[in-house]
Amino acid sequence: MPAVMSIVGAIDIGGTKIAAGIVDGDSRVLARRSAPTPAADGPAAVLALAACLVREASIDAGAEPVAVGVGTAGAVDSVAGVILVATDALPGWEGTSVASALAVDLGLPVHIENDVTAFLLGEAVSGAAVGLADVIAITVGTGIGGALLVDGHVVRGRTCVAGNVGHVPSPEAGDRRCPCGRRGHLEAFASGPAMTAVYRERSGRPVADLREVARRARSGDVLAKDVLHDGATALGRIVGGLANVLDPALILLGGGVLGLGTWYVEAVAQAVTLEVLVPLDPVPVRAAILGGDAMLVGAAAAARTAGA
Amino acid sequence: MPAVMSIVGAIDIGGTKIAAGIVDGDSRVLARRSAPTPAADGPAAVLALAACLVREASIDAGAEPVAVGVGTAGAVDSVAGVILVATDALPGWEGTSVASALAVDLGLPVHIENDVTAFLLGEAVSGAAVGLADVIAITVGTGIGGALLVDGHVVRGRTCVAGNVGHVPSPEAGDRRCPCGRRGHLEAFASGPAMTAVYRERSGRPVADLREVARRARSGDVLAKDVLHDGATALGRIVGGLANVLDPALILLGGGVLGLGTWYVEAVAQAVTLEVLVPLDPVPVRAAILGGDAMLVGAAAAARTAGA
Repeated sequence: MPAVMSIVGAIDIGGTKIAAGIVDGDSRVLARRSAPTPAADGPAAVLALAACLVREASIDAGAEPVAVGVGTAGAVDSVAGVILVATDALPGWEGTSVASALAVDLGLPVHIENDVTAFLLGEAVSGAAVGLADVIAITVGTGIGGALLVDGHVVRGRTCVAGNVGHVPSPEAGDRRCPCGRRGHLEAFASGPAMTAVYRERSGRPVADLREVARRARSGDVLAKDVLHDGATALGRIVGGLANVLDPALILLGGGVLGLGTWYVEAVAQAVTLEVLVPLDPVPVRAAILGGDAMLVGAAAAARTAGA
Repeated sequence: MPAVMSIVGAIDIGGTKIAAGIVDGDSRVLARRSAPTPAADGPAAVLALAACLVREASIDAGAEPVAVGVGTAGAVDSVAGVILVATDALPGWEGTSVASALAVDLGLPVHIENDVTAFLLGEAVSGAAVGLADVIAITVGTGIGGALLVDGHVVRGRTCVAGNVGHVPSPEAGDRRCPCGRRGHLEAFASGPAMTAVYRERSGRPVADLREVARRARSGDVLAKDVLHDGATALGRIVGGLANVLDPALILLGGGVLGLGTWYVEAVAQAVTLEVLVPLDPVPVRAAILGGDAMLVGAAAAARTAGA
């Protein structure tokens, strides 16, 4: 692992934004650049911009990276450096050889990870999960993503698509259609768009998005409060069940839903506590603390560990 | 690991029966002994009988073990060799230093595992899960137990109690009280006693146990059929959700419920298929094939791996 204490580049590729950074050997982000994802222009344009951003960040930092780590939306084969599954948010992304394409462009070794995995690794390196070997990480935003650390190792699964915490049957989700095509999964009730839809149904009133629901909750709309609380409870119940299966040291929450406030994390924690077996010590539920840097720090750490 | 190809003793300690065997380097069980568990007489009596059975099996086999592996009911700290949590089926078992007590009695190194973990390891060594690195094992009987293999390693968790597949919230379980004290867990709807209770409720007729429900189902009682099928479906939904989280190569079923017949395994598989994400290849669901030998073979394999 020649890159352990060296400068590493990091890229976070999402459906709406690409962020890049330069990360030092102490996991400090020395410089950051970002730009809207040119998703409609296809994978080549996305990769060209990503490479450009990491070069600019390198100039900003006055430091040359020896390797690059990438966190990207979609299911990832980290060994092959290829995107296995992606959503419509990144047309053509599925099957893209991200690692080799960027390696050629940048002239550096490149390692790729799923973005939720990068998030978990970042928080484990220098965030809310430092020093913990068993962690369930969940990001709640447009969807519900997950990543698992078991005995210090990322759980990848047989086909590299492990971590779909949003796609566990949820009693609260009933018969609701999930974006995955199945019915009754957690994501169909507790994601940002799902909570927004539930509020729309229950109130009969139009509402733009989760922020608007949150605004109404803050200004005293009891129905809006209830919908958000029910989403937190549904999430906590499933995560509590998963805690009974995996016996983690921490449940780590991230994603846009943290914008709802600390009460959301507390509501999830309360539901987790009501679900876990008594012999387990209470499993702590904590919010991520690194913000967008988590993906950069985690991608850089993964590149170091892989010796990319 | 001096015991790799050697003769190892194996003990399976359950609430009603203790089995012991002698296992050779090819994981063949050379001799078996068993006796009812003297649970009411306390841990010392249980351990004395277990040691006696393994000695007798050794005489039967004409082979001297170099180490002993134990699979036992309850949550286990394998490193310390101690029972962390146990149910009322084995009074006083909690806190018992099983490994050191047996090691003194037998004059051999002793390694202990949870019995469902031993079951999984046995099937992985020479049963239905041979060669697979990612497996979810579930045993359905009086309770619903589980054990997980991830990337070839047993998932133990922070407090060594991982694997509680029966204690995930199940949409079908509604508000039913679970033996763990919580409500709505899978075990409250899909274990043997739970399916028996559901039949009793729905039919308004007394029924002794799951075998009796199964007999009625076979003789054309549609309600009995439905109850068993609903139990299989509830199990399959949760296990399918867990497959989305863990991306396993196999879902392995064991326990008394296999006595219901192959249709049960097929019904679970069907529910799993309806739950898993499309990108995942269909996850196979298979019944265990080693019967009671799985625990002996697995306990012996664990003792070998641990170098006990």
